[in-house]
Amino acid sequence: MSPVPDETGSVALPPAFDDPGYAAGVVDLLGALAYGELTAFDRLAEDSTTAPTTPDKVELAAMACAEFGHFTRLRDRLHLLGADPYDAMAPFRQTFDRFHANTAPRTWPESLVKAYVGDGLASDFYREVAAYLDDQTRGLILEVLEDSGHSAFAVDRVRAAITADPRVGGRLALWGRRLVGEALTQAQSVAAERDGLTALLAGGVDRPGMDLAAIGRMLARLTENHARRMASLGLSS
Amino acid sequence: MSPVPDETGSVALPPAFDDPGYAAGVVDLLGALAYGELTAFDRLAEDSTTAPTTPDKVELAAMACAEFGHFTRLRDRLHLLGADPYDAMAPFRQTFDRFHANTAPRTWPESLVKAYVGDGLASDFYREVAAYLDDQTRGLILEVLEDSGHSAFAVDRVRAAITADPRVGGRLALWGRRLVGEALTQAQSVAAERDGLTALLAGGVDRPGMDLAAIGRMLARLTENHARRMASLGLSS
Repeated sequence: MSPVPDETGSVALPPAFDDPGYAAGVVDLLGALAYGELTAFDRLAEDSTTAPTTPDKVELAAMACAEFGHFTRLRDRLHLLGADPYDAMAPFRQTFDRFHANTAPRTWPESLVKAYVGDGLASDFYREVAAYLDDQTRGLILEVLEDSGHSAFAVDRVRAAITADPRVGGRLALWGRRLVGEALTQAQSVAAERDGLTALLAGGVDRPGMDLAAIGRMLARLTENHARRMASLGLSS
Repeated sequence: MSPVPDETGSVALPPAFDDPGYAAGVVDLLGALAYGELTAFDRLAEDSTTAPTTPDKVELAAMACAEFGHFTRLRDRLHLLGADPYDAMAPFRQTFDRFHANTAPRTWPESLVKAYVGDGLASDFYREVAAYLDDQTRGLILEVLEDSGHSAFAVDRVRAAITADPRVGGRLALWGRRLVGEALTQAQSVAAERDGLTALLAGGVDRPGMDLAAIGRMLARLTENHARRMASLGLSS
């Protein structure tokens, strides 16, 4: 769902953007998402160098480039909203960099679990938030979060690694828990620091939002989906 | 120039492919080119992590993903020719890996010079060879070698680095000579090992090829173009 430029070349934004608080919150959210995609590119490209075979490496490189493609869509949208994309990303840099520094995979199966479980969790979260946003922003977010069929590859390879050596399963289950714990820690620090983002979630006078009970239900859904993904890898959560 | 599938879904190949030696030579050439693109992705993605700013990093990541896109086009063509793309790439692995191991950039400007000068030299070489090939193969090669406007970025940033510190220019000039020397060394080892490739260059009964004099003229053109690229960076060659 791309906005249609009018004859002057500018784009009609949905009425929600008349509220400067809303507009700032969307810029924050897209900035976080864009920086997330850019670091995902980095991480997948780096992990691709540890792939055991060339076809495996190519799968990870394809995932990396898909994430980079999403990044460019978000960057262009930020431009169109009149924001500097790099300024919009800057506040989230430290959080994402810390997350990746604290969860650097040491093995190829750890890379795959991180790509599958970490991206799945992030996607679920952004989808939940998108439900409260205007059509254009929601459309863009759902578009860049679409799974491009790479999950099946990660699931297949992780299950094969566990079959080959069942002890790997225990270690990867711990790894999955560590990824979620670190993600929650970093998400909380973002929520505490970025008022624009929390305001976006909380809603406004004429815009529905999440109260504490809704946030609780969202966390429950995120956790359930995470457990489902771990199970599909053959791992306990 | 993509081949058009007939009603059975198979593709009509140009008559040159009736000669098994020619077909094998093309598979060799596309295999080398494909592995070259894949390692270019690797190298550019890795170099992007040393970029001084996020916009610079994004430029290099975009170059990396463009190379990966070329790789996928070559891989698909190899499939279509009935070859296993990974088998076709395998003979060139060691040569490219050695080239990159021997020319790992230690600084950001070295990365840029390598991206610009190294890719330029490789492109020139493949273009020269393409002139002797059938339409379909030539069309694909010219397509994946097309400069996607990233050269201007490298030239701009390298010139800025030299302006900021003129001593950088001397070191980068030496670096440029080292890149060419290493590229020629590796190219010679490929030519010595891969009969299919050299046969492709030499031509056949009803197909023109390069004699020694033509190869000499080609090397002269490659060297001239290299000097021109070094000059556009503000470097002696």
